[in-house]
Amino acid sequence: MMKLVRFIWKNAAAVYLPKVIEHYSEYSPSPLSIKQFLDFGTVNACERTSFAFLRHELPVRLANIMREISLLPDQLLSTTSVQLVQSWYVQSFLEMLEYEGRDPSDHKNLKNFLDTLITIRNRHNNVVPTMAQGVVEYRGAYGGETSTVNIQYFLDRFYLSRISIRMLINQHALLFGDNDNPVHPQHIGSIDPACDVMHVVQDAHENAKLLCEQYYLVSPEIKISQHNAQNKGKPIEVVYVPSHLYHMLFELFKNAMRAAIERHDNEGHPLLPVEVYIVLGKEDLTIKINDQGGGVPLRKIEQLFDYMYSSAPQPDMNSSRAAPLAGFGHGLPLSRLYARYFQGDIHLHSLEGYGTDAVLYLKFTLPGYCVKVQIGCEKCIQHNKDILNLLKM
Amino acid sequence: MMKLVRFIWKNAAAVYLPKVIEHYSEYSPSPLSIKQFLDFGTVNACERTSFAFLRHELPVRLANIMREISLLPDQLLSTTSVQLVQSWYVQSFLEMLEYEGRDPSDHKNLKNFLDTLITIRNRHNNVVPTMAQGVVEYRGAYGGETSTVNIQYFLDRFYLSRISIRMLINQHALLFGDNDNPVHPQHIGSIDPACDVMHVVQDAHENAKLLCEQYYLVSPEIKISQHNAQNKGKPIEVVYVPSHLYHMLFELFKNAMRAAIERHDNEGHPLLPVEVYIVLGKEDLTIKINDQGGGVPLRKIEQLFDYMYSSAPQPDMNSSRAAPLAGFGHGLPLSRLYARYFQGDIHLHSLEGYGTDAVLYLKFTLPGYCVKVQIGCEKCIQHNKDILNLLKM
Repeated sequence: MMKLVRFIWKNAAAVYLPKVIEHYSEYSPSPLSIKQFLDFGTVNACERTSFAFLRHELPVRLANIMREISLLPDQLLSTTSVQLVQSWYVQSFLEMLEYEGRDPSDHKNLKNFLDTLITIRNRHNNVVPTMAQGVVEYRGAYGGETSTVNIQYFLDRFYLSRISIRMLINQHALLFGDNDNPVHPQHIGSIDPACDVMHVVQDAHENAKLLCEQYYLVSPEIKISQHNAQNKGKPIEVVYVPSHLYHMLFELFKNAMRAAIERHDNEGHPLLPVEVYIVLGKEDLTIKINDQGGGVPLRKIEQLFDYMYSSAPQPDMNSSRAAPLAGFGHGLPLSRLYARYFQGDIHLHSLEGYGTDAVLYLKFTLPGYCVKVQIGCEKCIQHNKDILNLLKM
Repeated sequence: MMKLVRFIWKNAAAVYLPKVIEHYSEYSPSPLSIKQFLDFGTVNACERTSFAFLRHELPVRLANIMREISLLPDQLLSTTSVQLVQSWYVQSFLEMLEYEGRDPSDHKNLKNFLDTLITIRNRHNNVVPTMAQGVVEYRGAYGGETSTVNIQYFLDRFYLSRISIRMLINQHALLFGDNDNPVHPQHIGSIDPACDVMHVVQDAHENAKLLCEQYYLVSPEIKISQHNAQNKGKPIEVVYVPSHLYHMLFELFKNAMRAAIERHDNEGHPLLPVEVYIVLGKEDLTIKINDQGGGVPLRKIEQLFDYMYSSAPQPDMNSSRAAPLAGFGHGLPLSRLYARYFQGDIHLHSLEGYGTDAVLYLKFTLPGYCVKVQIGCEKCIQHNKDILNLLKM
């Protein structure tokens, strides 16, 4: 497949493709809020509208990020890993172009579109470790001469774009795919309209604990407390993507546990508990994970979010050994992007010599939220432009 | 005195003064580290060297900030308060110019210089409330049309410049003034070479508690814990300016107590304790003050450091009533400047619906630090340039 891409790229596409990419990259991506995803997934779950929106929006997003990839320093762009990533984007972009001008009311088109989306999603599964590998190669070869600021800026945008593209694809695939979601029938695509935060916290903790015990044979105790300032004593439920929340919490738990255990091992310090505070306020949902793992000097906090600084060689994927708790070092900056994707954030603050507080801030929507957009299915197709504008609001 | 300044400014000075200000403002201020202050104050405490350094350095710093004042928006510059502040700077600048070319070995010159420094320091005592009043007037008159970003940037630089000028003046006045420091004979000017952090924390807490009880008739309980990772179980002692540390801690205690009490009063929440962690690591001294006063949404955290946003009308200075715990709203951003002045910082992070952690980070120098600079007094005067270069290192 890569050979084919190269062939197309080098020949016919050498003239045609860059122009099309340029054309699409002149559009700005249309950001969607979690409310918009939810509205679309409930009242207006219309496969034809989604098709019409995505066949334009996905090439726009792919083209925008491809243009940025092409501006990377040559020494990074020319690594085998980045070339591979680039070829995936070219391939997926070409596949999306197939749907330009196709009739949204033809069921075959809809079915093929769905299959293409799933193919694209799977093709891009390993983008993060592959790109991270490219950064390792680049840093290894050029060391101090590398311009870290631009790479950091690029990777933040690149990974955020990837998160948003996968969110769009997943919503379409889950809403209109053959497989119903038998485990979570109430979910709207990947969104849980009443996500039980404590449940996700416990889930992420359990799995981090298993991984931790597999690797270190021990794990620190955990203390979780929950404060619902909106509805005292009630569980905290919000509209959110549980897989995103899980991803961030799993990462923060791994870091907290590793710090606690390594301090215990290296400094003979007692293995002290990890404390978790879950707080629902009027505006923020905040989850603080507190370790006593010795902390990090203020000067080094920002480095923990630096892709170039923290990149470690990719763990051997074929190894049968347990994966270490430290992966290839992109976990923390990626988690911050997941938080920022829906207007949240992750802050770290450390008391060097004592421990670290990781604070996950999330903007939340309470369950039961629903704005009914009064547009029926026939009108969707007739007034496609209006809908696109609506989705862009 | 103001009339005189105006007269000078308007007449002879109208030509001469702006040129001299321009001349001095072309020099960059020479930042000094706490180690340099300490070295100078111990081994090399030479009044003539200090005179030679300050008679150039102070006009440079005054001229630099005067140039920035002159660039303020007209509507702020023309307020009575800012006019008054500006007149103080002009007056002090003129007084410093008197010492250009004077002989440093003449004792009368040294004595007059010392008196002038003390006059200048006292003249500028009320710069902060006066400038804050100017901001209130400006905001009141022009409201939404004001450009807050530039004002914030200016005030940060202006107040930081003021901190540094006062530090320079105080060191000279305390080292070479007639009054020995009978309470703290071991201090080097305003620097305590073995500042007991717990002592300052307790002192700041005691006074914040008194103020709090005077105003609210009650104050929250406090829990202080100390972790010395350098020297387990030993008290934490560092080289620092205790008055700066006190200033920051007093501000943070006032805020924490006010939050706890107001939540108790308004929401019927129990009055919960304020917790303090003092941690000495290898690189940072960190003091965390933790309240359960209900917190602040992430969106509003940065506003707490905004001079324009938080400015309240100046509390009546002549009133016999107890001063409220909220002053004119510059306490938090000013405290952050005190921290930043010696490369520290203040971070706030809140769990909205629960409480706030205020974290004070300080770069520290351990007691006993001393670099002996091998320059005697005679050489100081002969090789004045070398010394200035040395002080600029």
